[in-house]
Amino acid sequence: MRLRNKPWARDFMQAHPDALILEPETLKRGWHSEFGNAHPIHVEVGTGKGQFIIGMALANPDVNYIGIEHFDNVIVSALEKAIEADKPSNLRLVRANGADLEAVFENGEVDRVYLNFSDPWPKTRHAKRRLTHESFLRRYEAILVPGGEIHFKTDNRKLFEYSLVSMSDYGMKLLDVALDLHADLPEDNIMTEYEEKFSKKGQPIYRLESKFVTL
Amino acid sequence: MRLRNKPWARDFMQAHPDALILEPETLKRGWHSEFGNAHPIHVEVGTGKGQFIIGMALANPDVNYIGIEHFDNVIVSALEKAIEADKPSNLRLVRANGADLEAVFENGEVDRVYLNFSDPWPKTRHAKRRLTHESFLRRYEAILVPGGEIHFKTDNRKLFEYSLVSMSDYGMKLLDVALDLHADLPEDNIMTEYEEKFSKKGQPIYRLESKFVTL
Repeated sequence: MRLRNKPWARDFMQAHPDALILEPETLKRGWHSEFGNAHPIHVEVGTGKGQFIIGMALANPDVNYIGIEHFDNVIVSALEKAIEADKPSNLRLVRANGADLEAVFENGEVDRVYLNFSDPWPKTRHAKRRLTHESFLRRYEAILVPGGEIHFKTDNRKLFEYSLVSMSDYGMKLLDVALDLHADLPEDNIMTEYEEKFSKKGQPIYRLESKFVTL
Repeated sequence: MRLRNKPWARDFMQAHPDALILEPETLKRGWHSEFGNAHPIHVEVGTGKGQFIIGMALANPDVNYIGIEHFDNVIVSALEKAIEADKPSNLRLVRANGADLEAVFENGEVDRVYLNFSDPWPKTRHAKRRLTHESFLRRYEAILVPGGEIHFKTDNRKLFEYSLVSMSDYGMKLLDVALDLHADLPEDNIMTEYEEKFSKKGQPIYRLESKFVTL
């Protein structure tokens, strides 16, 4: 599914500025004004087709959710889902690259970062592209409040192993870890599209909560 | 299998002071002399029937290994195995309780601690008995050299989850983690009795290396 196969996508994306932000840099420092309240802001980096972030927005009206996705042809599916859900007022989809987080958010503007089923980039020479690489952790730390948390889920064992070590090496503290999330499923778990698919196959889903330590 | 069913055990244990130390407090500060060299000392806490520590001693002649076990009726099986292996000169079995490590070793006398398939103590009210509880981490830190490492294996998911958080909370750094050890088995892996049994059933074996951080 490529954008060139969706010639209608660009117009469609531009038609919903209340749900999808195409130039998010203009809102840096202004996200609370955009939402019109002082509720905490939780950001999912790599939001994909949006099932998780939309489910979270519906389940938690007192939290503002921002789903960031780089690819037009993917975020357009998230937009369709957001419209089906009547465009929750505490949700914004944002077209941006995870590497540009600091252009989109002021330091300390975000209260929590979610990473779900990120691309594992299995080759060692691509380690820098993993969303839990030190270079990304540094970006999350910058935009998060002091002591801000990362909540991370994946079915990819190698990526999870890597991420545990990467976060520890960065000096983050592990608050919680589940090595088979669906064996003791928390009531408030919202599944991503991938999670539904892979957990049905009986593959373990890994999850962690970690936080940056203020010195 | 209880000791009272092995009336010969006590005499047997006393007959091999070159392999089994029954009063290890007398060797505190003197372990390098006991081994007659300055090689690093690696201690397994809860050595069980000894397959791991004896295998390690045979595989790594330049490291001294001490296997600590509290229960007479268990350590006697380890002693039998050590005798079958011709009592490696770099191996000592020690009858002691993990809670008494500081009575057995001087501060900084140990270079590495191994924990293998420790009792998970699943009930929350027994958390203090888990060998990765903060109170045990404090003991390991005391007897280890600065920056000393813990190498930990288990098939118990809940214990591993708990241990990751406990070590992180203590301020330890995670150096390596494997969430399915036998999927990419390191060549130098020495299996415990439990590990052989559980990995054959296809259950994942979890493993980590962590270290204490010197400030």
